[in-house]
Amino acid sequence: MNSQTYHVAVVGATGAVGQQMVRLLEERQFPIHKLTLLASRRSAGKQVSFKGETITVKETTPEAFEGIDIALFSAGGSVSKQFAKEAVKRGALVIDNTNAFRMEPDVPLVVPEVNLEDIGKHQGIIANPNCSTIQMVVALKPIKDKYGLKRIIVSTYQAVSGAGNLALEELKEQSAKVLNGEAFTPEVLPVAKDKKKFQIAFNAIPQIDLFQENDYTLEEMKMVRETKKIMHDDTIEVAATCVRIPVFTGHSESIYVETEKEVNVEEVRQLLREAPGVIVEDNPAEQLYPLATRAAGRPEVFVGRIRRDLDRPNGLHLWVVSDNLLKGAAYNSIQIAEAYISKFQS
Amino acid sequence: MNSQTYHVAVVGATGAVGQQMVRLLEERQFPIHKLTLLASRRSAGKQVSFKGETITVKETTPEAFEGIDIALFSAGGSVSKQFAKEAVKRGALVIDNTNAFRMEPDVPLVVPEVNLEDIGKHQGIIANPNCSTIQMVVALKPIKDKYGLKRIIVSTYQAVSGAGNLALEELKEQSAKVLNGEAFTPEVLPVAKDKKKFQIAFNAIPQIDLFQENDYTLEEMKMVRETKKIMHDDTIEVAATCVRIPVFTGHSESIYVETEKEVNVEEVRQLLREAPGVIVEDNPAEQLYPLATRAAGRPEVFVGRIRRDLDRPNGLHLWVVSDNLLKGAAYNSIQIAEAYISKFQS
Repeated sequence: MNSQTYHVAVVGATGAVGQQMVRLLEERQFPIHKLTLLASRRSAGKQVSFKGETITVKETTPEAFEGIDIALFSAGGSVSKQFAKEAVKRGALVIDNTNAFRMEPDVPLVVPEVNLEDIGKHQGIIANPNCSTIQMVVALKPIKDKYGLKRIIVSTYQAVSGAGNLALEELKEQSAKVLNGEAFTPEVLPVAKDKKKFQIAFNAIPQIDLFQENDYTLEEMKMVRETKKIMHDDTIEVAATCVRIPVFTGHSESIYVETEKEVNVEEVRQLLREAPGVIVEDNPAEQLYPLATRAAGRPEVFVGRIRRDLDRPNGLHLWVVSDNLLKGAAYNSIQIAEAYISKFQS
Repeated sequence: MNSQTYHVAVVGATGAVGQQMVRLLEERQFPIHKLTLLASRRSAGKQVSFKGETITVKETTPEAFEGIDIALFSAGGSVSKQFAKEAVKRGALVIDNTNAFRMEPDVPLVVPEVNLEDIGKHQGIIANPNCSTIQMVVALKPIKDKYGLKRIIVSTYQAVSGAGNLALEELKEQSAKVLNGEAFTPEVLPVAKDKKKFQIAFNAIPQIDLFQENDYTLEEMKMVRETKKIMHDDTIEVAATCVRIPVFTGHSESIYVETEKEVNVEEVRQLLREAPGVIVEDNPAEQLYPLATRAAGRPEVFVGRIRRDLDRPNGLHLWVVSDNLLKGAAYNSIQIAEAYISKFQS
């Protein structure tokens, strides 16, 4: 048992995910002797409460990483690209929740329930996968292990908090204005850095992140590439359609998988009941199925609507829901940090 | 050319779809000499305006169909089961927008862009398909004709107006209460006649209509069975996951199809541009894709996000959006009536 304590930094501490990270570090009694909170110059000076103390957020600079043992990054890809290697240079382990390094060969991309062992291969940076990928691979890992996985077709129903606090505010304000019949101009979604903005209140937007050359969005390609990397299997065919819907927190996913071997639904339910980090909510007679509103605030991945395909004995349909800020981001990062200090440091 | 005029009845005239039917009959200058509006006893006595006149809604009774030429039913399956044959007995053509007769062998199930010719086989009743089926088959018909259709996997993002005016009111009231932090008790959705009710505001509910013995919902099985019947092809494999989201009007669908022959995306776009009732909105560089908010109030089916599968040359992904009250219900019914009087009566 390891009784060491660490100097931890959260980069992006005032953001939607950063706030959850700070909360989880406290709630889970992460072994910390000092917490440094970093953010952009704009957010520096804000006060954040941690274990009854008030911590003042500082601007992210290379020097801010002096003495840091573990740095949790969640301030956007450009911040990670600018500062993660500075942190590593100063001796920190970086757990990066952005897209900056996920596909780099020497950066492990880790979902502890799926590929914990990859943590050991790190060279200073461990990447946290995209929210929509994490909940999917947690649900599919037991299915892959038992039946083999040939193919995944997923359509997502993604919450607005995945786009950050400004997007969340936009959803609330727009919704109120629509209900009151007031005019408004969309300003944040679908993608802060893209040209056009669209109404998210009472709408469904089939664009998350920027379009790529192949007409898939970056979010869709993240799901494709990250799934193969996390599962160590480039032969799995993955197709994704990623859609933003007016939900605050909790991504839902309609997933079809084609397995190598014939599936048995009752066996799948049992496999998933025994799987780490999964809660099966699947009883049609009782209208029990995962719901975003119920998953929000909880760390697990919820799976239901488990049905065999009507035509294919090796086809399976699932409805998978999880809190995108927790298992999809902050909680998975903290899990990586916890696994790192317990398994790979002691 | 046919200059006959008709005595038309709308059954369920005060409902979400019935209101659209009355509006469309006026807007499209349907050849009417008399309009009779019928509803439940509870709604009888309500006043509806039509072409500058005020029509009083009457209770639906067998005798109310005396003298009716065309009866448009949209008051729920039980009302259709009770009264459609009474209307036929009295000489009316029934166009039924409920699930009551859709799968009966002697009842044509018609989407004019797909199987107009089936109208001729009617024996008094023509069925209007389910909203989620209609927009899908309109988009897929040209693809089927060109490439052959082996398989469809669809995940829906369905609007609340599909569940009627009470559900729509519930969404508005719940949304306001969530925004104001007030308590509420869900009362209508997911399914008025099912046991449990769930929050629809800022949520996604993977249940539309009742669960069947095979753990699929009735809405999902409608999509499966109706697609095969409309397309006259029982060999097409169809799998559906139907989800209600907090949108007022406009169903969105993430559709994957597997074709017999290899697809060419630019050719698919061109085919769809030329297809009746379809508008292609598909330009990733300009962030152009179908949106529920933009489709609401319009009669067409909007198709975008057209992508070839990353692994399969005969796999195609699409995002299909349409107004569920118009093409999904009222407009399709009126189209059937118009086709009937122009093609099969003159």
